[in-house]
Amino acid sequence: MTVVALSGGVVGAKLALGLSRVLPAGELLVVCNTGDDFEHLGLCISPDIDTVMYTLAGVANPELGWGRGDETWSFMETLDALGGETWFRLGDRDLAVHVERTRRLRAGETLSAVTADLCARLGIVPRVLPMSDDPVRTRVRTEEGWIEFQDYFVRRRCEPVVHEVAFHGAATACAQPDFLAALASPRTTAVVICPSNPFISIEPILAVPGVRAALAECAAPVVAVSPIIGGRAVKGPTAKMMAELGMPPSAGGVARRYDDLIDGYVCDFADMDQVAGIDAKVTLGQTMMTTLADREALARTVLGAARVLRR
Amino acid sequence: MTVVALSGGVVGAKLALGLSRVLPAGELLVVCNTGDDFEHLGLCISPDIDTVMYTLAGVANPELGWGRGDETWSFMETLDALGGETWFRLGDRDLAVHVERTRRLRAGETLSAVTADLCARLGIVPRVLPMSDDPVRTRVRTEEGWIEFQDYFVRRRCEPVVHEVAFHGAATACAQPDFLAALASPRTTAVVICPSNPFISIEPILAVPGVRAALAECAAPVVAVSPIIGGRAVKGPTAKMMAELGMPPSAGGVARRYDDLIDGYVCDFADMDQVAGIDAKVTLGQTMMTTLADREALARTVLGAARVLRR
Repeated sequence: MTVVALSGGVVGAKLALGLSRVLPAGELLVVCNTGDDFEHLGLCISPDIDTVMYTLAGVANPELGWGRGDETWSFMETLDALGGETWFRLGDRDLAVHVERTRRLRAGETLSAVTADLCARLGIVPRVLPMSDDPVRTRVRTEEGWIEFQDYFVRRRCEPVVHEVAFHGAATACAQPDFLAALASPRTTAVVICPSNPFISIEPILAVPGVRAALAECAAPVVAVSPIIGGRAVKGPTAKMMAELGMPPSAGGVARRYDDLIDGYVCDFADMDQVAGIDAKVTLGQTMMTTLADREALARTVLGAARVLRR
Repeated sequence: MTVVALSGGVVGAKLALGLSRVLPAGELLVVCNTGDDFEHLGLCISPDIDTVMYTLAGVANPELGWGRGDETWSFMETLDALGGETWFRLGDRDLAVHVERTRRLRAGETLSAVTADLCARLGIVPRVLPMSDDPVRTRVRTEEGWIEFQDYFVRRRCEPVVHEVAFHGAATACAQPDFLAALASPRTTAVVICPSNPFISIEPILAVPGVRAALAECAAPVVAVSPIIGGRAVKGPTAKMMAELGMPPSAGGVARRYDDLIDGYVCDFADMDQVAGIDAKVTLGQTMMTTLADREALARTVLGAARVLRR
């Protein structure tokens, strides 16, 4: 049996960790957004894959919300002293992943193969896949024109007002074959859309040709988890971006954004009033994941919602 | 006035430091061997330039003889855990130099320009130049065939027997223009061949077209310092390599190797008997550079030898 989880970075990774702990070993497949990927300092960086890997491996940095917890910063300090670019912070241990990934990608290996080996080395049991082995790059149109995603997200701290989001390369990218195969498999029991930012974490995945159709044809229920709790985004620019893109920053707004893609929708008790009238079957729960127990509890809620929908 | 020093790594860098401390500011130009340069983990690494820079900046690692003293090793530890290649040790701070250099070289800058900026950032007063901005790669022919230099020197710890040394790319490389200009300048008062390994540190520089001719035509005296003290190499595989290449591993052997290239030769009191009958004017001194005072003293000895030759 397989549960397929679509995830962005931090918050999605928390639910992926919860799922990995409540599901039998080997039943979780996490498909990561790679629209955030970019080349920086000559290195191929995949922020969402790394956050998911580090979270599943138990080495993520809980304070920063990115990178590794057991990190040192000598490289960045020295790069700063040398006048290098330091707006995207790379820890010394984190750097090993980027250098090794870059070397192997340049030698012609796929991002899937490199990710699988990194996960094995990190002792990660669930499978972690990029949405595609082809580059897809999220860009946002702001009042200053189109900006590369990390420029907007990290360097500009999401300050520019966003008018439009696009996924460069998505139209010609091939969905990761094992991802599509899992969606088509009768052994798949649920597809979980993690509580990641719909615009920049989930929709890049959906933008890869064939993914929306495969989700529509998937026999297993598709259950999304709201990234909005009590009308606010737990983390990051989700609420600000939703408002700028003319969508109500509410649990109901996200549910309507996913529209006929989802069969079930898990949102917080606090947002009960926001989801009246949506098509998907709503399950209320506690969606704030502060502790590890919260992550496991939300995973059980989501899997329970999927089980009900399979009947 | 300018003193031009030709240098390899560790031992040459020690004399360069000594020269930088006894010469007036701005009068030293250090030309570094780049035959040891290589690409590793996707990074452009220039070991001799880095050793010279770190030594002149006062941040070199005195225990290791390479890299930086204030170093951390998180990157390498993590790369090891990820199954990456760790035979060439790269510290976290050292890595910042390689990443920044690689980024700028790939953006089309010259090694000279990048080196100048790195030196400025490191607060280094002497000018440090690569022998050429074109790639030259030292290779050694062993009983197993041709091996890339760092493979031989670091990975194989100089264990294979060397039959021949070659400098791939040297024949079509252009000597660094400021290096040639300094050799032609009437303001140059001495050319110092540092006590580096002749085969792998000095001869790559001499192999670049025009360098031997410019040294021959240089109005200033050329003074070499023996890397052999009491019949033994201070560091590295110099004596072993000399014996394998059929040359007596002695101060006299090195002097004869430099042949009519040099006007003066500085060797240790211990090797007085070895240099009888060589053409260059011999100056005896203490050539072991254990302390900073030793480096300054040897620098004074070398500059004194050049002064005598200028009369």
